[in-house]
Amino acid sequence: MAYSNRHYEELKGAYLFAEVARRSSEYKRANPDKKVISLGIGDVTLPLVPAVIEAMHKATDDMAKKETFYGYGPYEGYDFLLEKIAQQDYKARGVDISTKEIFVSDGAKSDTGNIGDIFGEENTVLIADPAYPVYIDTNVMSGRKVVLVPTKADNGFIPEPPDFASDIIYLCSPNNPTGAVMNKKQLLAWVGYAKKHHAVILFDGAYEAFIQDSSLPHSIYEVEGAKEVAIEFRSFSKTAGFTGIRCGYAVIPKELKLQGKNGEVSANELWFRRQSTKFNGTSYITQRGAEAIYTPEGRAQAMQNIAFYLENVAIIKKGLDACGIEYLAGLSSPYVWFKCPGGLSSWDFFDKLLTVCNVVGTPGEGFGECGKGWFRLTGFNDRSNTIEAIERFKQL
Amino acid sequence: MAYSNRHYEELKGAYLFAEVARRSSEYKRANPDKKVISLGIGDVTLPLVPAVIEAMHKATDDMAKKETFYGYGPYEGYDFLLEKIAQQDYKARGVDISTKEIFVSDGAKSDTGNIGDIFGEENTVLIADPAYPVYIDTNVMSGRKVVLVPTKADNGFIPEPPDFASDIIYLCSPNNPTGAVMNKKQLLAWVGYAKKHHAVILFDGAYEAFIQDSSLPHSIYEVEGAKEVAIEFRSFSKTAGFTGIRCGYAVIPKELKLQGKNGEVSANELWFRRQSTKFNGTSYITQRGAEAIYTPEGRAQAMQNIAFYLENVAIIKKGLDACGIEYLAGLSSPYVWFKCPGGLSSWDFFDKLLTVCNVVGTPGEGFGECGKGWFRLTGFNDRSNTIEAIERFKQL
Repeated sequence: MAYSNRHYEELKGAYLFAEVARRSSEYKRANPDKKVISLGIGDVTLPLVPAVIEAMHKATDDMAKKETFYGYGPYEGYDFLLEKIAQQDYKARGVDISTKEIFVSDGAKSDTGNIGDIFGEENTVLIADPAYPVYIDTNVMSGRKVVLVPTKADNGFIPEPPDFASDIIYLCSPNNPTGAVMNKKQLLAWVGYAKKHHAVILFDGAYEAFIQDSSLPHSIYEVEGAKEVAIEFRSFSKTAGFTGIRCGYAVIPKELKLQGKNGEVSANELWFRRQSTKFNGTSYITQRGAEAIYTPEGRAQAMQNIAFYLENVAIIKKGLDACGIEYLAGLSSPYVWFKCPGGLSSWDFFDKLLTVCNVVGTPGEGFGECGKGWFRLTGFNDRSNTIEAIERFKQL
Repeated sequence: MAYSNRHYEELKGAYLFAEVARRSSEYKRANPDKKVISLGIGDVTLPLVPAVIEAMHKATDDMAKKETFYGYGPYEGYDFLLEKIAQQDYKARGVDISTKEIFVSDGAKSDTGNIGDIFGEENTVLIADPAYPVYIDTNVMSGRKVVLVPTKADNGFIPEPPDFASDIIYLCSPNNPTGAVMNKKQLLAWVGYAKKHHAVILFDGAYEAFIQDSSLPHSIYEVEGAKEVAIEFRSFSKTAGFTGIRCGYAVIPKELKLQGKNGEVSANELWFRRQSTKFNGTSYITQRGAEAIYTPEGRAQAMQNIAFYLENVAIIKKGLDACGIEYLAGLSSPYVWFKCPGGLSSWDFFDKLLTVCNVVGTPGEGFGECGKGWFRLTGFNDRSNTIEAIERFKQL
């Protein structure tokens, strides 16, 4: 008798964004004449930048000729990309990460979802509330105990280490959904907590490229001692508009050890074993596209897109100001996190916004209890849609 | 204290192909003047066919323009590809599979590795020996009990249902590593076994495109009743040379139920939940490339490549004939499975072949006990390398 993984029955409802997509498709089907604007799912809308397009065409041509054809790639990614990451994302910020500590993948969602494979079920997992649902759902699926660390408006939605022990901690900065960014002191407190409890921090830096304030760290490894306790995830989805291309990477320092059956084991080696067994590398063409972001032109073009999205964020915030709606300050994230007007619950506000304004957002409640009564809009749509959505919003 | 997944310590050595790669790289580094020919890992060498290249260039151009840019795709794949698969891979063979039963992914290795997520740990897993190591390793990683079904030369390495119960059964046909292909009667016996024990068959059809004998089934669903008990995996890796591009799909019929905590649950729904939580779809460009294989030109071009590899297989077999070496008959697979000459163990023969002939193969023992004393060569290299390798081999 084939048994299902019973833990799936402990999941709460559908995956958040699948549910958001379901409700908006349903509305669109019933109202085909309405122009629905999505400021919901954090999906980019600007096309890939010219440097990436050029690199991908060239890589496609490589695949068309026997002499330059690439079959199975290295499980952990091509050196040409690993070297750029080590150099520009880390060394340039004073962090020493070797190419053997970087694993290129098909995206940070896969990585943050699959990383659980190398951890035992007995670990207790600490997750800041609100949070990207993948953190909780994947741990529920694995039968791990999840403990939530509440965050609130009055501390800027920044999670603080609790006074009890735990084994795995998810931190996301710049945060999805709140947009809050942790400073070095705040990260240092978590590194200290992890050291004290021999815990591991899973640091999700998918929105790193949006950081504007030069005093803020881009990597957790900018904090002393973090290499012994932290795994970091990065993504090209938002940095380079790769949501439909799929590329990200995980950094697992050699120093990072887990408690095994017979003493300490290397998390880096476990992940290599996991990836070489359940994954077969990332598309050569995709990796060449990602590499192009590390050229001066590619970088400049990508940063122009980021600036464009941040301007959308500013427009949304200005609209909220005009309505007197409270939102979380800060300009280092593509998200606007605000309090639902009129004391509405966030799903009620979602439905109202969809049916009255024809605007799709993401209910804060979908990210956790502490998101109740809060709402997330994104700066990822185009300029005219963003402006139109905010005008409709103001009328509401 | 962060604990590792202790089951990783129960794994035997490195992942087979990682070990093969390690030994051959080491030899190449020590002997940079030697021309090493690989007939080892089942990796294609012919470039992508023109229809695929054209489609991928076009898709890259789509990503360069705002109007045709694609962000996050559907978790289960784009309809344009799902419809082609349903129509040409199934309906054309008399099998009715809906697009809602197909899930496009970044490859069959990911799928066959990750599918375990939806099954409970208490299931007993039946795996034919020898087998693709991913089947065993991923189940060991999850702490499931694995029972091997021995296969032997005298029954053509075809596994037969045992007289005891089990819950999950891996079948691979055309088989990796042996090349054996199961006929309808043999599959029907397994479907009957699965029904009797309410078990699920995981049918790996990655090498389906190599089937030459028109009496042989391409899909397990060609067998009556299979939709209630079988999940099928397919890949574009060998069919279309996508080993470096990464695309495959899983078919999970709506009829397939697993035993949940509170009654039966749909395997299709569980997999959708898994994929929407831990995966974010396959690259748009990749899916457009895969779609091109379903055009008449694309199909013809891909089949030409398959024919080329099968000719290599015939050349290798002719060489083995000349040496009087016993091998498994059949012409529906890119693999040649033969008995190591001189009664050598398969790793000893691997080392000898590498150091004396400078040819890399894959030791049968790496696929299981029943592969002891057997060896796998592939038809995936180019013509002159294949001929040269066989000439060297003959001299040995």
